[in-house]
Amino acid sequence: MTTRFDVLSIGNAIVDVISTVDDNFLTDNSLIKGSMQLIDETQAQSLYDIMGPGIEVSGGSAANTVAGLASFGNSSAFFGKVKADQLGNVFRHDISAAGVCFQTPGAEDGSETARCLILVTPDGERTMNTFLGACVEFGPDDIDEATVRDSKVVYMEGYLWDPEQAKLAFLKAADIARSAGREVSLTLSDSFCVDRHRDSFLELIKRDVDILFANEDEIKSLYQVDSFDEALQAVRQDCKLTALTRSRAGSVIVSKDEVHVIDARKVDQVVDTTGAGDLYSAGFFAGYTNGKELAQCGQLGALAASEVISHIGARPQTSLKDLASQNGLL
Amino acid sequence: MTTRFDVLSIGNAIVDVISTVDDNFLTDNSLIKGSMQLIDETQAQSLYDIMGPGIEVSGGSAANTVAGLASFGNSSAFFGKVKADQLGNVFRHDISAAGVCFQTPGAEDGSETARCLILVTPDGERTMNTFLGACVEFGPDDIDEATVRDSKVVYMEGYLWDPEQAKLAFLKAADIARSAGREVSLTLSDSFCVDRHRDSFLELIKRDVDILFANEDEIKSLYQVDSFDEALQAVRQDCKLTALTRSRAGSVIVSKDEVHVIDARKVDQVVDTTGAGDLYSAGFFAGYTNGKELAQCGQLGALAASEVISHIGARPQTSLKDLASQNGLL
Repeated sequence: MTTRFDVLSIGNAIVDVISTVDDNFLTDNSLIKGSMQLIDETQAQSLYDIMGPGIEVSGGSAANTVAGLASFGNSSAFFGKVKADQLGNVFRHDISAAGVCFQTPGAEDGSETARCLILVTPDGERTMNTFLGACVEFGPDDIDEATVRDSKVVYMEGYLWDPEQAKLAFLKAADIARSAGREVSLTLSDSFCVDRHRDSFLELIKRDVDILFANEDEIKSLYQVDSFDEALQAVRQDCKLTALTRSRAGSVIVSKDEVHVIDARKVDQVVDTTGAGDLYSAGFFAGYTNGKELAQCGQLGALAASEVISHIGARPQTSLKDLASQNGLL
Repeated sequence: MTTRFDVLSIGNAIVDVISTVDDNFLTDNSLIKGSMQLIDETQAQSLYDIMGPGIEVSGGSAANTVAGLASFGNSSAFFGKVKADQLGNVFRHDISAAGVCFQTPGAEDGSETARCLILVTPDGERTMNTFLGACVEFGPDDIDEATVRDSKVVYMEGYLWDPEQAKLAFLKAADIARSAGREVSLTLSDSFCVDRHRDSFLELIKRDVDILFANEDEIKSLYQVDSFDEALQAVRQDCKLTALTRSRAGSVIVSKDEVHVIDARKVDQVVDTTGAGDLYSAGFFAGYTNGKELAQCGQLGALAASEVISHIGARPQTSLKDLASQNGLL
């Protein structure tokens, strides 16, 4: 079955503001290293005021994934809401220039385009503070049915559960996808996000999700268990196909009949881990939507993640298609 | 004589939009590699539409210099005009967070904050396309006399000659500085900029400029000569102190009585040359305003330039004070 898009992703449309800090900055400001917390406009302004100089670069978890997928040469689309302001124009330019079809109209009124204040510590770990801004305007009306039907996989981020209307939008997209015989995929996004929406995620995974992405903390939080292996056994019962990422320990892909353990790729220096999970998904889909074996999908995920953590920013800075070709993976 | 600021710099307040391109992109779009060209809003939009994904980072030549100087631990101030819009807020945040005093009010109306579309080729060379935007609103009324009087050196970029009111503003600042016994410094900015304003620059250099910065192309353009040495001999007659930068060939500092030839510092990989000259000036001033020998000023300039060309963006990403200390230069 031919579709126009390999993957349609739905997520918060965010511009990242990246700044380097030392560890004391996190403790002094009661920030939990490695997490994503939601902040309001006032908090965003207060934090920005005390941050050092920044670099602005388009981000958003699900958006990063399709930007990465486009870099592999795959066709992709994105739904998400910016405001029609300068940063909204930046987001729209960057994702379109990456080769992703992005046609969700920008909001004319309301909050500014969302931004994520990302604090990167010397170990390369990122701590994210997200002001959702215009993302709260995203809702079911922004789901273009024809695009959903014309995509092999509809992928969305767990972060979408935070703005209420976005959650409804995703559920609508999932229904359309299922009725069109398409696959539905979810990334759990963040362990605190899982805490906020555990029951709802579990229900969705059992009912609608064909392909689940989670890191170790997220999957343990989902099942409220202490060991990775317990979580793995649990998710194996609930979901057809799951890719579990474990940072330097690589990843595990598990279905009812298969288990693959994939090594992480060594990088010279971890500069900024922002987007590692997002790009793992991109690589996975680059293989999956081309009918590759699961192990190869995981290797492509590891390859894309290794590229993005070797520089500042959550989108690839080199052609992932060329990189995969050089590594004999595509 | 104690002053509040070591250097006050005056320049165009610009946010850079940096994207990597191959050489064909430049030739296909009739862009001259390594140059800065002025473009209007329509041209800026057209070029942006065909550029790849970008990174936004505060720039502006003279602004980069004081941001670099602040990184050395020196006190500095900046005059320049943004609009009170999102990119204007980015510029204001970044230069303030770098430790530079920046109090020029933003324009409420008129064009958007200036941006420079910077295309970086695989050799690390940058080609700049500047939409001046709100910079044209900068004028003599933006010159705060007390700040000028309270700065050891007033430094400005030749690019200021492009918007007419900014030129008048600089001349006003130069007059105040001279009458207060302060020094006046100019960077020629770009050889095409020198072409546009040659007579005016020559007059200014002979009358007002104590410290001149120029690269090889600029100084040859100023005197319309073919050889670097001819240009060097000419400027030696016209200006008390000149620092001439020559990219990989290092720099030459020349006064009536002294000549110093400074080697460039080796860098592992030239990633993006944007800001090399700006940071050379920063390092030079870090030494000069602390009473260091001219050779040491040049070495500090070379050090700061080597830091900024080793990454994307025209402002330092590490403490130049620490770097200078590690290299035994301060």
